Amino acid sequence: MSPNPSKWKTITSEHVYETPIFKLLRHRREHGQRGVRDFYVLNAPTWVNIIPLTAENEVVLVRQYRHGIEDFTLEIPGGMVDPEDESPIAAARREMIEECGYDSAEISELGRVNPNPAIQPNYCYSFVARNVQSVPQPEQEGAEETEVVSYRLAEIPRLIRSGAISHALVIAAFSFLHLHSPSEL
Amino acid sequence: MSPNPSKWKTITSEHVYETPIFKLLRHRREHGQRGVRDFYVLNAPTWVNIIPLTAENEVVLVRQYRHGIEDFTLEIPGGMVDPEDESPIAAARREMIEECGYDSAEISELGRVNPNPAIQPNYCYSFVARNVQSVPQPEQEGAEETEVVSYRLAEIPRLIRSGAISHALVIAAFSFLHLHSPSEL
Repeated sequence: MSPNPSKWKTITSEHVYETPIFKLLRHRREHGQRGVRDFYVLNAPTWVNIIPLTAENEVVLVRQYRHGIEDFTLEIPGGMVDPEDESPIAAARREMIEECGYDSAEISELGRVNPNPAIQPNYCYSFVARNVQSVPQPEQEGAEETEVVSYRLAEIPRLIRSGAISHALVIAAFSFLHLHSPSEL
Repeated sequence: MSPNPSKWKTITSEHVYETPIFKLLRHRREHGQRGVRDFYVLNAPTWVNIIPLTAENEVVLVRQYRHGIEDFTLEIPGGMVDPEDESPIAAARREMIEECGYDSAEISELGRVNPNPAIQPNYCYSFVARNVQSVPQPEQEGAEETEVVSYRLAEIPRLIRSGAISHALVIAAFSFLHLHSPSEL
């Protein structure tokens, strides 16, 4: 039987690489029984995503090119909390307007997850926006390019089972929505 | 209205940093309307996780220290598919034996997700193991240290809602289990 796991003590931390969306750190850590080892961590800001629901229970999804898988995905809007964002909820609303051109003041938090607690310290917060309505969408600048696609909420389980929706953080958001309102989804 | 999103064409790819669990790549890519930009990608192997269920519908979870969040998590067993593993299912079974000392030959695939399609090419496959039984657990070497904790399957939604289970990939696995057998979870 293994002993109860213990915390590790950080001896040194070093930035080893920096990108526009995360910093890579090497932590040298010590453990009474397991010695001194290096652990790599991606320091990323808080992330958010948001389920935009129309009054008719349609979900507004975005189709976009993703550079990790070099292919298109079907996702809910989401992104990083920028330094200008007042809060995670403000960031989620901004992303919803920018990525799909829908808005609503009826936004509530569903929950938060660790995208990957082994290598990232950050959380991703999930929200639902109800009674969203079409609003003017700012022109997409930079590298972002999204196409809006709507589905009935009842179709989401099928899209997850088939792999059409494959992003773990999007699946976590719908999982929270189901836990909050099992009758809806 | 934005145009349909297009693919980007890779001009150059460069390894910029390497760690034992992923390589960091910088892809320089080109797009007809959006010019030339750099995108960073974490090249990681296939990941797996597995829900060990006893004949009494108890889920065998592991408590462990996670270096990204610098705290303990409650998770199902999981990890990387090693070069020695024959398949994702073999890797999942190995992780289940190593991390919690349970085994079963009744393992089936639940689904797979992209942990983060924006910055990672890899998939995480989720499995369920039924009628698991206690087996001798190899001594934990290296940095890994896990404690086994069991819960009734019916308690899982509460553990996710409360944040006691916070790992997005673990939540995705239970989401798949629910989609496969809604009456169970």
